[in-house]
Amino acid sequence: MTYTIGLDYGSLSCRGVLVSTIDGTIIAEDEFVYPHAVIDHELPDGTPLPPQWALQDPEDFRQAFQTLIPNLLKTSQVSPTQVIAIGIDSTASTVIPVTKGLIPLCEQIAFHNRPHAWPKMWKHHAAAKEATEITDAAVAQGLPVVRKSGGAIGCESLMPKVLQIFHEDPEVFENAASFFELCDWIVSLLSGCEVRSTPLLTCKSLWTPQDGYPKGQPFDSITPKLAFHDSIRPIIAAPGESVGTLHPSMAQSLGLSENTIITAGQMDGYAALPGVGIADEGTLMMMIGTSTADMILSRKWKDIPGVCAAMEDANLPGFTNYAAGQACVGDMFKWFIDNCLPEKYTLEARQRGLSNHAYLSELAAVYSPGDTGLIALDWWNGNKSCINDMRLSGLLVGLTLATRPEHIYRALIEATAFGARKIIDNFNEHGLPVHDIVACGGIALKNPFLMQIYADVLGMEIKATACTQTAALGAAIFAAAADSCHSGHRNVFSAIHAMGAKATVSYKPVIENTRKYHDIYRQFMTLHDFFGITCNNTMHFLGDCHK
Amino acid sequence: MTYTIGLDYGSLSCRGVLVSTIDGTIIAEDEFVYPHAVIDHELPDGTPLPPQWALQDPEDFRQAFQTLIPNLLKTSQVSPTQVIAIGIDSTASTVIPVTKGLIPLCEQIAFHNRPHAWPKMWKHHAAAKEATEITDAAVAQGLPVVRKSGGAIGCESLMPKVLQIFHEDPEVFENAASFFELCDWIVSLLSGCEVRSTPLLTCKSLWTPQDGYPKGQPFDSITPKLAFHDSIRPIIAAPGESVGTLHPSMAQSLGLSENTIITAGQMDGYAALPGVGIADEGTLMMMIGTSTADMILSRKWKDIPGVCAAMEDANLPGFTNYAAGQACVGDMFKWFIDNCLPEKYTLEARQRGLSNHAYLSELAAVYSPGDTGLIALDWWNGNKSCINDMRLSGLLVGLTLATRPEHIYRALIEATAFGARKIIDNFNEHGLPVHDIVACGGIALKNPFLMQIYADVLGMEIKATACTQTAALGAAIFAAAADSCHSGHRNVFSAIHAMGAKATVSYKPVIENTRKYHDIYRQFMTLHDFFGITCNNTMHFLGDCHK
Repeated sequence: MTYTIGLDYGSLSCRGVLVSTIDGTIIAEDEFVYPHAVIDHELPDGTPLPPQWALQDPEDFRQAFQTLIPNLLKTSQVSPTQVIAIGIDSTASTVIPVTKGLIPLCEQIAFHNRPHAWPKMWKHHAAAKEATEITDAAVAQGLPVVRKSGGAIGCESLMPKVLQIFHEDPEVFENAASFFELCDWIVSLLSGCEVRSTPLLTCKSLWTPQDGYPKGQPFDSITPKLAFHDSIRPIIAAPGESVGTLHPSMAQSLGLSENTIITAGQMDGYAALPGVGIADEGTLMMMIGTSTADMILSRKWKDIPGVCAAMEDANLPGFTNYAAGQACVGDMFKWFIDNCLPEKYTLEARQRGLSNHAYLSELAAVYSPGDTGLIALDWWNGNKSCINDMRLSGLLVGLTLATRPEHIYRALIEATAFGARKIIDNFNEHGLPVHDIVACGGIALKNPFLMQIYADVLGMEIKATACTQTAALGAAIFAAAADSCHSGHRNVFSAIHAMGAKATVSYKPVIENTRKYHDIYRQFMTLHDFFGITCNNTMHFLGDCHK
Repeated sequence: MTYTIGLDYGSLSCRGVLVSTIDGTIIAEDEFVYPHAVIDHELPDGTPLPPQWALQDPEDFRQAFQTLIPNLLKTSQVSPTQVIAIGIDSTASTVIPVTKGLIPLCEQIAFHNRPHAWPKMWKHHAAAKEATEITDAAVAQGLPVVRKSGGAIGCESLMPKVLQIFHEDPEVFENAASFFELCDWIVSLLSGCEVRSTPLLTCKSLWTPQDGYPKGQPFDSITPKLAFHDSIRPIIAAPGESVGTLHPSMAQSLGLSENTIITAGQMDGYAALPGVGIADEGTLMMMIGTSTADMILSRKWKDIPGVCAAMEDANLPGFTNYAAGQACVGDMFKWFIDNCLPEKYTLEARQRGLSNHAYLSELAAVYSPGDTGLIALDWWNGNKSCINDMRLSGLLVGLTLATRPEHIYRALIEATAFGARKIIDNFNEHGLPVHDIVACGGIALKNPFLMQIYADVLGMEIKATACTQTAALGAAIFAAAADSCHSGHRNVFSAIHAMGAKATVSYKPVIENTRKYHDIYRQFMTLHDFFGITCNNTMHFLGDCHK
């Protein structure tokens, strides 16, 4: 019996699994909640942050693997020698400025109070101008990456974040030896080598296997910092490939064997796709959590407008992975609960021992499509698919004196479902037919009310997996593929077939609801096109005003 | 010394004043809160009401004058013989189906559980289809009243409400001897005669002094019920004119003299105009409360699109009164407090001993124009000026995960200010220049934060009166004019000059804020025109869906 460990670095916590390489059974799992969560108002020392900033504390990331790996070993009672490999996935681009010794710059006293020295989280949106600058330069050079990134390089990727540091705090930029994606940093720490993962390089850093980084400005200003100049030779590898074994000192401190293979890191959504057992085209993975990631594979490259990324070999070799998504889903529902739920509702929920979400879902469930008289545009955190404009913002229309909180809550859920439908329509219309949907992620597991609305809006059956750790499982699958000698899986596909999670729940559309939602969706699309395309200056203006 | 009494029947209470006819000094004032408030979910016996309904209990109206008049006499210590006249104003159209003896039909056991037998409040919006039917018929006949009513007969006026009864409950319609405007009903009860007031007839019932009611369908179906057929001869009179004296039995029960003159009723907004001392053109009255009424006089009739009503002699003889307004202002802020304010805010406000409004205003006041990144369309209860479409609904755009309740609260206040600016721009653009603004109403008195935003958005000084009872005072002024023998005022103009309230507070625009709001207003107008005109089917669709 052999096992692998997968670590999934999310927005607020890191989840770890220890799984059997035979069938992917999760033998042990654990979660490490980041003590510093998201740093979006002020640094720990009180230094205030401007709007749109989102930082994290790198010590949280380090503690995560230091805590989780020993815990998984202990809980599972598996012998360290049976753990043959480790895989890592993380949010991206979460970008860490580091010194030569891989020490985060913000941990140096001289830079502790400098916001730009801290890791910028994926949802740090303050580099919007830099994203435009990068996009303009890439367009001017005719780089195919722009088309493959949905027509624009978004501020959630790496280069705009690094360019913002270059612009706004040159001293931090100069003193950083390099900038790392979170999962690359963890893999580098574990292996003791400088490792960059190809999917992150191609999807988030405009790098290609043929040409490396783009040349010319503004790229020349920042690319010298995207790899160390000397000492250790950087390793460039794909998830499922070995980058070497655990560094001896790490092996000792974590209680693992020095022979443990490390595979290259992967973006969390991209890890979840093998995690839910997808290894071929036709099946859409919809990972619904704080935000939603949608992914589908294709053997042939197709030019599909508005996807976030359509990169060859970005996920599985031989396939282009088409990634779309919605920038805020669970985050928007949480925003509503935190900012819009009146006292009488929270009191009633508390009295009945229900979560606010459960109580609101119960109230909202009595309505039929359209009953609320409301439509929302789900752009509380911008639009990252089809329009691909992070400066767009949320909208709510149809408000009357009779509007109640549960109406708005339902409208927000419906809005995310309409956003999902737009993404699927877009795939279908451009030659990438969606035959099946497999849902995963926290919300897909916990919220059958939402899932039924999704099935009704999409007019399709949605299968959901009961596995709560699909991304971590995917990382463990990549790990198993990276050590085929011991796992017995000759490549990543055989590992997925054996170890991927199975769907256990099914949501089927109610025809009458689908029909009604069809009409409402047309109105949604009128608003979508007006605010997102025809008259996007209204939301841009408001975004520029916002303080 | 002589005195008059003015009673102002509002949405939730009736206010009464007893004032000196010399200078309008309020000697006594009192308020009677309607025990049954607004009946919008179910009848007192539990009979459920459809959406958009708003009824009231006529016994509340009766108790109001029976309670207030004796209280005013008692508090003021004025001798009943010194009270020379009574004036009434009320919301309109608040429509009461009555029997021959002026008994409300809903007070008959057989009709007690029939929603259509109850008084329909002005803001009963369930007769939207009938409003369209009435409008279409009036347009087909080329009736000038359509143009004078802003291009459409709104469902807040009388005829659509009566037509809805005719359509939906023919038995109630048949058994009603007539339908009365609230203030006409009170005046009729007090005087013992059937009295109809000319401003209400012309503004709310399509009646003209020349032609009476319109002929043809659907008018012929309902107009026979708009006056009693026999017995007492109806009196048609204007406010400021006497309709006779107090009925002896009323005089006895109220403790007043049988010689007390009754003047014809007036709509509440129209009573407030003389109440704030306006007796000539150039000055806009802005009465800001649950909704806002804007009024300005003109000696010449001008065709101004989008005003709610532009009726000759509707207020003061010789002037056309241009009435515009916003269908919900305070109502919208109250909706927000009731439905959107999270527990931590209500707890904090309570702990600090502040009202929720005061606490939110304090939080919202730290921002500058635009800082919230939000714009709202203030159509939670439809649009009754410039577009004149009650099927429109509210909108909020610019929402992000950083949006806080105080941002939305401020955006709602700003939206009402933009709505006010649109109304004033419309007057100015069509030859009715607004030189001065006098504000009154509950919100104008209590909310300096809102008033400063209005001054900034409008770029004009706003004067406000400290008088809390401008409509009741206006009713008392009309009463004084109706008994010129004893009051010494030879007409309503001299009564206004002597008795009208004086402005005591001034809000001056801050130039920098006005400049910023100018840009935001342009965005507001983009939304206004898109949702209100170009693409109004979105809101119509949502209104039709809403259950």
